[in-house]
Amino acid sequence: MPRPRLREAGIQIGELPPGALNAITDVAGVRVGHATLVAGEGRLRPGQGPIRTGVTVILPYGGNVFRQKVRGAVHTINGFGKACGFEEVRELGVIEAPIALTNTLNVGLVADALVTYSLSQSPEIGIQTGTVNVVVGECNDGFLNDIQGRHVRAAHVHAALEAAAVGPGAVGGVGAGAGTSCFGWKGGIGTASRVVPSGAGGYTVGALVQSNFGRPHDLTICGVPVGQRIAPPGSGPGVTREQGSIMIVLATDAPLVSRQLGRLCGRAGVGLARSGSHHAHGSGDFVIAFSTAQRIEHDPAALTMTATLLADERAAMTWLFPAVAEAVEEAILNSLFRAETVVGRDGNVRHALPLKDVLAMLRDSSAEGSRSGERRVP
Amino acid sequence: MPRPRLREAGIQIGELPPGALNAITDVAGVRVGHATLVAGEGRLRPGQGPIRTGVTVILPYGGNVFRQKVRGAVHTINGFGKACGFEEVRELGVIEAPIALTNTLNVGLVADALVTYSLSQSPEIGIQTGTVNVVVGECNDGFLNDIQGRHVRAAHVHAALEAAAVGPGAVGGVGAGAGTSCFGWKGGIGTASRVVPSGAGGYTVGALVQSNFGRPHDLTICGVPVGQRIAPPGSGPGVTREQGSIMIVLATDAPLVSRQLGRLCGRAGVGLARSGSHHAHGSGDFVIAFSTAQRIEHDPAALTMTATLLADERAAMTWLFPAVAEAVEEAILNSLFRAETVVGRDGNVRHALPLKDVLAMLRDSSAEGSRSGERRVP
Amino acid sequence: MPRPRLREAGIQIGELPPGALNAITDVAGVRVGHATLVAGEGRLRPGQGPIRTGVTVILPYGGNVFRQKVRGAVHTINGFGKACGFEEVRELGVIEAPIALTNTLNVGLVADALVTYSLSQSPEIGIQTGTVNVVVGECNDGFLNDIQGRHVRAAHVHAALEAAAVGPGAVGGVGAGAGTSCFGWKGGIGTASRVVPSGAGGYTVGALVQSNFGRPHDLTICGVPVGQRIAPPGSGPGVTREQGSIMIVLATDAPLVSRQLGRLCGRAGVGLARSGSHHAHGSGDFVIAFSTAQRIEHDPAALTMTATLLADERAAMTWLFPAVAEAVEEAILNSLFRAETVVGRDGNVRHALPLKDVLAMLRDSSAEGSRSGERRVP
Amino acid sequence: MPRPRLREAGIQIGELPPGALNAITDVAGVRVGHATLVAGEGRLRPGQGPIRTGVTVILPYGGNVFRQKVRGAVHTINGFGKACGFEEVRELGVIEAPIALTNTLNVGLVADALVTYSLSQSPEIGIQTGTVNVVVGECNDGFLNDIQGRHVRAAHVHAALEAAAVGPGAVGGVGAGAGTSCFGWKGGIGTASRVVPSGAGGYTVGALVQSNFGRPHDLTICGVPVGQRIAPPGSGPGVTREQGSIMIVLATDAPLVSRQLGRLCGRAGVGLARSGSHHAHGSGDFVIAFSTAQRIEHDPAALTMTATLLADERAAMTWLFPAVAEAVEEAILNSLFRAETVVGRDGNVRHALPLKDVLAMLRDSSAEGSRSGERRVP
Repeated sequence: MPRPRLREAGIQIGELPPGALNAITDVAGVRVGHATLVAGEGRLRPGQGPIRTGVTVILPYGGNVFRQKVRGAVHTINGFGKACGFEEVRELGVIEAPIALTNTLNVGLVADALVTYSLSQSPEIGIQTGTVNVVVGECNDGFLNDIQGRHVRAAHVHAALEAAAVGPGAVGGVGAGAGTSCFGWKGGIGTASRVVPSGAGGYTVGALVQSNFGRPHDLTICGVPVGQRIAPPGSGPGVTREQGSIMIVLATDAPLVSRQLGRLCGRAGVGLARSGSHHAHGSGDFVIAFSTAQRIEHDPAALTMTATLLADERAAMTWLFPAVAEAVEEAILNSLFRAETVVGRDGNVRHALPLKDVLAMLRDSSAEGSRSGERRVP
Repeated sequence: MPRPRLREAGIQIGELPPGALNAITDVAGVRVGHATLVAGEGRLRPGQGPIRTGVTVILPYGGNVFRQKVRGAVHTINGFGKACGFEEVRELGVIEAPIALTNTLNVGLVADALVTYSLSQSPEIGIQTGTVNVVVGECNDGFLNDIQGRHVRAAHVHAALEAAAVGPGAVGGVGAGAGTSCFGWKGGIGTASRVVPSGAGGYTVGALVQSNFGRPHDLTICGVPVGQRIAPPGSGPGVTREQGSIMIVLATDAPLVSRQLGRLCGRAGVGLARSGSHHAHGSGDFVIAFSTAQRIEHDPAALTMTATLLADERAAMTWLFPAVAEAVEEAILNSLFRAETVVGRDGNVRHALPLKDVLAMLRDSSAEGSRSGERRVP
Repeated sequence: MPRPRLREAGIQIGELPPGALNAITDVAGVRVGHATLVAGEGRLRPGQGPIRTGVTVILPYGGNVFRQKVRGAVHTINGFGKACGFEEVRELGVIEAPIALTNTLNVGLVADALVTYSLSQSPEIGIQTGTVNVVVGECNDGFLNDIQGRHVRAAHVHAALEAAAVGPGAVGGVGAGAGTSCFGWKGGIGTASRVVPSGAGGYTVGALVQSNFGRPHDLTICGVPVGQRIAPPGSGPGVTREQGSIMIVLATDAPLVSRQLGRLCGRAGVGLARSGSHHAHGSGDFVIAFSTAQRIEHDPAALTMTATLLADERAAMTWLFPAVAEAVEEAILNSLFRAETVVGRDGNVRHALPLKDVLAMLRDSSAEGSRSGERRVP
Repeated sequence: MPRPRLREAGIQIGELPPGALNAITDVAGVRVGHATLVAGEGRLRPGQGPIRTGVTVILPYGGNVFRQKVRGAVHTINGFGKACGFEEVRELGVIEAPIALTNTLNVGLVADALVTYSLSQSPEIGIQTGTVNVVVGECNDGFLNDIQGRHVRAAHVHAALEAAAVGPGAVGGVGAGAGTSCFGWKGGIGTASRVVPSGAGGYTVGALVQSNFGRPHDLTICGVPVGQRIAPPGSGPGVTREQGSIMIVLATDAPLVSRQLGRLCGRAGVGLARSGSHHAHGSGDFVIAFSTAQRIEHDPAALTMTATLLADERAAMTWLFPAVAEAVEEAILNSLFRAETVVGRDGNVRHALPLKDVLAMLRDSSAEGSRSGERRVP
């Protein structure tokens, strides 16, 4: 029996309802795929293993994203990280390739694999027309994984792209989350979504995270300081030194320009802070957002295009912000709830968050009913 | 008997100990002064009153800040606000005048008053040497105050500067906090501080906030969703529409360059998020930070200076980040705990947060002892 | 007989044609107004005079800019300056009040006067709805002017707003340019415009500058190092110390979002560099841009709006960039060509650029015909 | 007989003297290495050739840059490009690996090769300590080169690192400049340096560029519009469509923090603009700067370090800014002066700038002596 996601365990974050899947794939068209690499055991032999890593790809839709781009934005909360492709997103406000997440030292190879993929879809790149900008994020999974080995190769990226699908998708220790750690426990991939009220446009916001951050005693769930009571076995200074990071990907069907997507990115930190993060020195905390509402032609016939744009001043923006905060917080917790214990290199262990104890603690704290289910969308 | 601050009511935020005063003035040399303007009652007569506003000034030390500047940084969380003086701080990394906080429409006059003050201290400005950059922040207190009247004049700024002092200082509905609102309650000025472990340098971080943000049902104290249970009387959509903002000023004696002070600013949002903010569309959320560790000559004799700088990689930075998050969260809550009910223009009321109810709710939630006092600095 | 503008003297910058007026007011609807303050002579008596300063206002159109905003962007080339209102433009991408330029120490009072003006047009501000963001730029005219006196008062701002008009407008030592200096000569207000080819949309870009920068020997006109041959009388180190700045305002009727307007701002530095600037340490070099193509309702009825947006990839963007570079370079030179000699405080003199000598030098350099008139729009 | 560099041809840019080599390697310790890939002729067979590309590496000093970093900064003039590693430089203000330049689609593989190199020097990375941030810049050489082939592999990067040396170094069509184009001519690698007056500290600034930008008719040398007279053979719209970019690397021995290095970066655009660039839409214009003055320990023993820092206000900064502008302008022109004609894929040709014609045109323009040699350092 698989471990439950947060909401399946009866815990509700925030006031807005999730989409049907409570996943980034609630945003119509969005696809997620993983390639998970687990091989070997025992002592670390750099370059050989053990391997606990992978790659996760997020596609705005199932087609040629180079020829028809989507509006996008990036945001750096703490820039201690190697995410690539950010400069061009800032300048042009579009995403033109699948987004990939992987381990820190693998960014170059994964970026190259995305180039290969883009060339295979659009062989005109570099010959008849410009170049392609790929966005890759990363977390350091070196506590469990032979990170020096850079084991994620082009074939894995292509497998993840092949596997990318709409639907609920896998979470926990999959793909780029195979080897990550969160608050001293096993972290990984998590996702969640929110739908804003119909009077605010009924738009969906989805979040997907690769969680790999946090000091054990800071873990907070629904405001309850779980980490102060429940500590990972054997958490000493060596184990718990903050080396982490988080990559956050946001998708929405709200018709936003890149400036507004950047505003959404700025609210991802709210959900992150509520889970217990303080954006530690060594934690590369990055956000990437895109809107599926309009496709931008690579080579448009006309000088201008007609666009439907959301007004900043109206109810939609008012609700999109808490929607992001809630979805990110829940996505992080889902990554913890779903991840199973992993033994990695040198016998290093990241234990699964002990849900029974956690749920008991949350139940005690909400005996008075205050912490779940009371928020309602007006 | 005055209302207690958070810690006097037995509530403890975070794991780090506060300084002796639990105030921004724990950073040696820092001075704070207020001028509080309260006059008139009844119907709003734009330009005349009622007046519920003021100005708060923060001085890095008791001397001529133009001639001997301090390192500084600014950070914009949500730029819907009129804070001024930011461009030059970004370029040069110094603060060279007292920092002032006031109401939104009063920024121009208060900036001008700071220029007057700087000229009086340094009559060479504009004649023998350059100009002076003043930093002013603001919140919209128009729910209670005749904000169109811009009642804060040069005399009030000078009075606040005259009154500026080391020591515990006033908090709540004073100075720039006289007319502000927070989570639908009366907000105002709040302050708190943290001291990092001696092994991490024993540095102090102080925060001072002008709180004016938040939807009533989002108020969160120590993770407890107080706002879901306890609502301000009469809070309907008209009363509770988010119009808010928060100004956050950070001071430290850690020897940081402006880049590092900017990193500290980035953690102010963590404390803010934990209090219940999601950086709403209309909320101008700004952070200003300075370090008192070294003075920078306006007109140095030598080409170079010798500086002691904190290493990013060591324990000090590791602790300064949660210190900021904790101090900001507590400063916000202190502003709510200490502010008294205010009746303003058109009979608009901002009630004091009902501490008895709040404390009872917090006690219930922490019956199992989880929420206070368990965190300890290693 | 007035001094000629650059093009009237037979000199042509760049390849694109100017608009009918060769001024920012070629962008339909844009209005410019000045209030020029000249009073007193002789020794500086701080606070009293002599006065050589003023204010220049630029209105995107002749109506209520608060209720119907225009898209805008700001850009800081060198942030050593006191320009205000930038944070909100960055966040929301709109300009909602007339833009004003003045002297450095007068920013606060001029900002306050713009608030007064906005309140008079829109008395709902601060009462029924939000607040107003005003953008003010500045240059240090303290070499000629009693800058400590902050002589520009609300009445002058209102007079400039009253006087604001379409049409060719005054340039040289008027308004905010009354007391400024450029390359050791008298600078001031300058303007120019460019029209992109009809196949690229036929859009107009206009630039208006307040010039106050540059070392005498760096002055360059059409690539000719004029400053190396022709020096201002008596230019010694005291006179020529770089204290300057430049404010650049760009207007266009091209339908750009704020991100794209920001891209235009980035090309203003090209024109500035070609005139001889290297963005000196003490030179606050700022750019403000707006598009008149669409008005953004302050309080829109609908969640979304329909917009026509320019594609980044097509010919329009290709031509808007050199259009900005050319218009800014020519606007700067126009400010020098038109400004008359001014004697200011303490008998300090800024001489008018000696056009006869300059034109002779340019003629010599272009004997071989290379420098004017050869560039043609394909 | 090799083609001369600019200064060898008697042309002098600016007023400051160059260093002994007039190269980035004038900054003591800086090393530059190239691997140049030229193979095949005739029709483009994507993935196979013809190959006209390479990689250029810049090392701050000859040692382990990971363990002892140098202060650094990055700056984006126009973000249409794929440069990587920028986020961490912004956050931490250091460079911790050799900087590499290559072709656009090769960034991933070159970044990966730099990781391999860093791991070989510092096998503790990812095991005992953090990760490594590599900075790679790029230009699109697809007009001459089979860019889809990504022919620069780890072995080439390692060869360039092996070859890296102090001394004059190769320029023109070498390394990352093997296949680039500039103003429709053959571009490539260029370098230059400047020394500020001894009273300003006598510091050296060096620039190295990979030039690949510009419309033919915009080429400007010493202010003379060379491109209006001398056009590359066969330059039609197909040949001359702006696809370009420029990567600019700055080195200095001045003791600057990252904020100040960022200020230097901002002046690179001045030199670029004077050569004829207007930062075209498709031109990714990026600047990377570092200071060799102090090494920053990866794992310092102490909480603080002592640093000598340059005062912003003094003469050194005053001179470093024009030094950057001059060095960048001359480095660009050197890349054009030294590059030989290259025939690439599909018989595409980039001709060498015809120096005889250019020099004749420059001589005519400076008949009156105004353009060379008159600027002197006070």
